[in-house]
Amino acid sequence: MIRRRLKIVLSYDGTKFYGWQIQSKGRTVQGVLEEALTKMHKYPVRVSAAGRTDSGVHANAQVCHFDTDLNIPENKYKNAINSFLPEDISIIDSIFVDDNFHARYSAKRRVYKYYFTNSMGYTVFNRNYCTKFRNLADLKILNECAASLEGIHDFTTFTCAGDQSGSRVREIYSAVIYPEGDLFVFKIEGNGFLWKMVRSIIGSIIHYASSDSGSAGFVEALNRKKRELAGTTAPAKGLFFHRVYYLEEKE
Amino acid sequence: MIRRRLKIVLSYDGTKFYGWQIQSKGRTVQGVLEEALTKMHKYPVRVSAAGRTDSGVHANAQVCHFDTDLNIPENKYKNAINSFLPEDISIIDSIFVDDNFHARYSAKRRVYKYYFTNSMGYTVFNRNYCTKFRNLADLKILNECAASLEGIHDFTTFTCAGDQSGSRVREIYSAVIYPEGDLFVFKIEGNGFLWKMVRSIIGSIIHYASSDSGSAGFVEALNRKKRELAGTTAPAKGLFFHRVYYLEEKE
Repeated sequence: MIRRRLKIVLSYDGTKFYGWQIQSKGRTVQGVLEEALTKMHKYPVRVSAAGRTDSGVHANAQVCHFDTDLNIPENKYKNAINSFLPEDISIIDSIFVDDNFHARYSAKRRVYKYYFTNSMGYTVFNRNYCTKFRNLADLKILNECAASLEGIHDFTTFTCAGDQSGSRVREIYSAVIYPEGDLFVFKIEGNGFLWKMVRSIIGSIIHYASSDSGSAGFVEALNRKKRELAGTTAPAKGLFFHRVYYLEEKE
Repeated sequence: MIRRRLKIVLSYDGTKFYGWQIQSKGRTVQGVLEEALTKMHKYPVRVSAAGRTDSGVHANAQVCHFDTDLNIPENKYKNAINSFLPEDISIIDSIFVDDNFHARYSAKRRVYKYYFTNSMGYTVFNRNYCTKFRNLADLKILNECAASLEGIHDFTTFTCAGDQSGSRVREIYSAVIYPEGDLFVFKIEGNGFLWKMVRSIIGSIIHYASSDSGSAGFVEALNRKKRELAGTTAPAKGLFFHRVYYLEEKE
């Protein structure tokens, strides 16, 4: 038997999960996935993920890796694993990778999307996948805030007490807000994100864009590196871990 | 106090309801709505709906009526009722109507939509709102089947044992299948529908369109008025009660 490293891409509806990371109680994506892989392999399998999403956060294309010695062709793992998974997790791709590939540490760029709307666009059907904000500023002002995030910044303002990252400096490659159907999307790409950073940023954009200070207030909040200047952290249900890129990948 | 008849338009996510109609056990839309209205009015309120949807079927714009003597402006009922409702039902409009208006019996035209896709378009996010069919025929063949439904027909083939309608003749004003994003929509408009008729029709279209007989087989099944010629009734989760029109309304 040859043991090989498999990279899998998966999407999940975070509504009924207590986040990614396995914990002593509560249903987690990691827990459900490891249980499925353990059944399949008949020995304990542990997985590592590119982004450890919080409770209620969704994933369009999360990436994990694990080592497998099953004699299954690369492209057949997808259906094989899905047959062990509940309907709110789905493997969408599987590929063998080098033994030094690590879903979390080899990641070069992560993309999050945050979906939001006003009371007009909010429905019983999208209620678990977007956030309703009562007052939305003009798209132009929202984008002035978003654009100020691009580049290298210390994101202390947009983290929270429990964050264990050493440095709070991250590079944001792009941040933009655009309409999509009846919703708005905040799409942000960076080399990495602090705990709850995306939700804190969008909550702060919504807050400052509608305030008297406008985008200048948001930029000042970012630059002063003070957590108390952040707006209310936006709810988890609007957030999607959208994509992750590795060194070898092109868009 | 003046008692007036109110027409309300509501949408609901049918996933966690045992259908529209109140029953001895199980959460129903009618049950939850009447409970909310009874709390609001402080006396028992009963409602009638345009379409009594089955377990798991959704509604974009269901219509009901009831009589109210609350002193609330017409356009304020919406928010007032919503404050008593769970998040999977939402009132989207409210308007006073004549005392002889009846949500069910005054309806002139009903529109249903059925959403479906193949395994490429099916995701963890739309899994409760569309049906995955493994084999989908060409859109042209699907539409040949749909077009044959237009006009006045006896729909015995597409009803089921429990249907209590006297006549099985209905008029279909239009029936068409078209792509919408990653999904396909079967949109059908008619003066009325037999029990499970839309789900039986789309199940039969999918079946015959991919079979050797093609759309000719579907047309023959319709014309022979035999239930055993129908395909498998399609799952409830893809079906939406989309709209209902009354005499006075224009599109």
